Amino acid sequence: MHRAERDPFDWIDARHERLRAAGLVRTLRPRRADASLTDLAGNDYLGLSRHPEVTEAAAEAARVWGAGATGSRLVSGSTGLHARLEESLAEFCGFEAALVFSSGYAANLAAVTALSGPVGSGTLLVSDEGNHASLIDGCRLARAEKTVVPHADPEAVRKTLAAHGGRALAITDSVFSVDGDAAPLSALAAVCREAGAALLVDDAHGLGVLGEGGRGAVHAAGLAGAPDVVTTVTLSKSLGSQGGAVLGPARVIAHLVSTARTFIFDTGLAPAAAGAALAALGVLRREPERAHRVRAVARELHRRVTEAGLRAVRPDAAVVSVQAPSPEAAVQWAADCREAGLAVGCFRPPSVPDGISRLRLTARADLSDAAVARAAGTVVATAPAV
Amino acid sequence: MHRAERDPFDWIDARHERLRAAGLVRTLRPRRADASLTDLAGNDYLGLSRHPEVTEAAAEAARVWGAGATGSRLVSGSTGLHARLEESLAEFCGFEAALVFSSGYAANLAAVTALSGPVGSGTLLVSDEGNHASLIDGCRLARAEKTVVPHADPEAVRKTLAAHGGRALAITDSVFSVDGDAAPLSALAAVCREAGAALLVDDAHGLGVLGEGGRGAVHAAGLAGAPDVVTTVTLSKSLGSQGGAVLGPARVIAHLVSTARTFIFDTGLAPAAAGAALAALGVLRREPERAHRVRAVARELHRRVTEAGLRAVRPDAAVVSVQAPSPEAAVQWAADCREAGLAVGCFRPPSVPDGISRLRLTARADLSDAAVARAAGTVVATAPAV
Repeated sequence: MHRAERDPFDWIDARHERLRAAGLVRTLRPRRADASLTDLAGNDYLGLSRHPEVTEAAAEAARVWGAGATGSRLVSGSTGLHARLEESLAEFCGFEAALVFSSGYAANLAAVTALSGPVGSGTLLVSDEGNHASLIDGCRLARAEKTVVPHADPEAVRKTLAAHGGRALAITDSVFSVDGDAAPLSALAAVCREAGAALLVDDAHGLGVLGEGGRGAVHAAGLAGAPDVVTTVTLSKSLGSQGGAVLGPARVIAHLVSTARTFIFDTGLAPAAAGAALAALGVLRREPERAHRVRAVARELHRRVTEAGLRAVRPDAAVVSVQAPSPEAAVQWAADCREAGLAVGCFRPPSVPDGISRLRLTARADLSDAAVARAAGTVVATAPAV
Repeated sequence: MHRAERDPFDWIDARHERLRAAGLVRTLRPRRADASLTDLAGNDYLGLSRHPEVTEAAAEAARVWGAGATGSRLVSGSTGLHARLEESLAEFCGFEAALVFSSGYAANLAAVTALSGPVGSGTLLVSDEGNHASLIDGCRLARAEKTVVPHADPEAVRKTLAAHGGRALAITDSVFSVDGDAAPLSALAAVCREAGAALLVDDAHGLGVLGEGGRGAVHAAGLAGAPDVVTTVTLSKSLGSQGGAVLGPARVIAHLVSTARTFIFDTGLAPAAAGAALAALGVLRREPERAHRVRAVARELHRRVTEAGLRAVRPDAAVVSVQAPSPEAAVQWAADCREAGLAVGCFRPPSVPDGISRLRLTARADLSDAAVARAAGTVVATAPAV
């Protein structure tokens, strides 16, 4: 009954062997609720994921609204909670309107595809080579011409836009997730305006960390609310929850509501996640010093590991990326850190387009100075010989 | 400062006008927590979204694990709760392994792209023309050859596979969301096996509704656990939560863990959603009659509206799709139902590829016979003249 004439998945075994030989097989390692590890692996930058106000808001939302949204946002999946979250996000970040998605990935797919203009409009997508996978997939899905430009290079964007001449959308992360470096947003906005192009910024790693009180990198660059700038954010990093959002001019948001496939055809964000993000935004408004603290922690981590001779990019936000000599060494290094009580991220191809594997340390606003010193000490003590 | 040289979004206004003229502008209408409407719009087929065990499990998961997963599944976003949910889903549905995603959309993008074989392998994707948007987007993202075949037509699939000769993946919904009709899974599996092709089935509308105790359409067809069949499900319909999952042979799931972009680069599903889905699965195991009841309610809705002269497809699962004469008439009809206390779905282009707008009624296991009769009566009483 279950015998196929031939095995349609035989290629998977060969592929798996190649990945294994290259040190690129990934395995899931579920964590325990009571894990005593110090976590510098996650993106819970402000420590809000376990904040009692935030978890209680999640619990209350599940009780009041149900465990799921029950349908797509345009059918039954929009609750009053979603509406309040969208108003609050837009107001906090300084945009006319916001639209919440079930993930930042879905928000990015929506923004890139829906802003690529009508088919046949000749819109050019100009995408930084360091952009997040979800922006890249958005470009792949969009029925538009694409050009990948060198990393963080406004002059390359300017030349590309000038050569194209027509409608265009430049696309960039505000803070790149691999190295934690910031995009030159002001310069990018200037070259876009000169060419009449729009600018789409993924501020996933900026919200809660950069800008006044954590309003993000776009706000910090004076671009929030601009008629030609659209921003995406995630609710799953600084806001400690799940989901993503697109922020922009009201007409852009209305356009997404009517046309974006990952909005129209996806179940709405679960009420618990919407409630948690809304509560986290409330905490951040009340305690803007959290944004300041997470940046200070990142700088201190960087200072300590580089002073010990490790190679790391100076952090513009909360991510401190430390180079490893090979994928295998990175895996071993991360395992040794874990053994010593410290969870760190380990980035290998294809997450690192340049092929250089890294340990990725994420700063957290709720770490004490002593905890920061201990964590940096562990990273240094377990470093592989180069 | 905020003045662009020219307006890069001017085309959005023109596009909006065209959508408005065609009756296709969509607007969000957030519902209230205490709404007294009878809901035949959502996909909460078993009424589990507000089941106390399910909402309490969501609340408890947020308290124990935090409001968010804090990172991608391979970094910090896998909890013991995710692992238990995956084991439980695989066991219930009869597969070797399962992998949970933040949405069914993400699960479908992952399954289609990762199963398209290595680039250059010449894999052909054979996709039913009625497939869900997320499967279509998966095909668009996949670097493989694609053929769209007529709806629910195994002979067309057979001919396409025979003409191709090489590696192939046939892709279908088990229950199509627009008309609620079922795919001929046994016949599709037979033609796939004959050609040595794999079969990918999106059982989003089958889980909890079809098969023994709601184990889904793939289980009902005797295909669960087959080495050449992969299934995706959603946690946001019958299980009343949020998220999606891919079910299949262990080597396929391991392959997704190491290669699927929407798995690797997305934040893990929020613990509250994972906990709610796990609890819903527990209720369904204990009360398998819910699956039976939802099908009976769908048949009764269909009987009542067709006996009154409306056009509707005989439901194979929980969705009853009633044809409307135009997008505008469908919108008005749905509004009149709402006025009379009944929430129904309203599907218009591009959600309906054939251009025929519909009211979409979704059966719920927790509706009384009297409520079903009232709901059908409302749909009939508010029907537009044709």
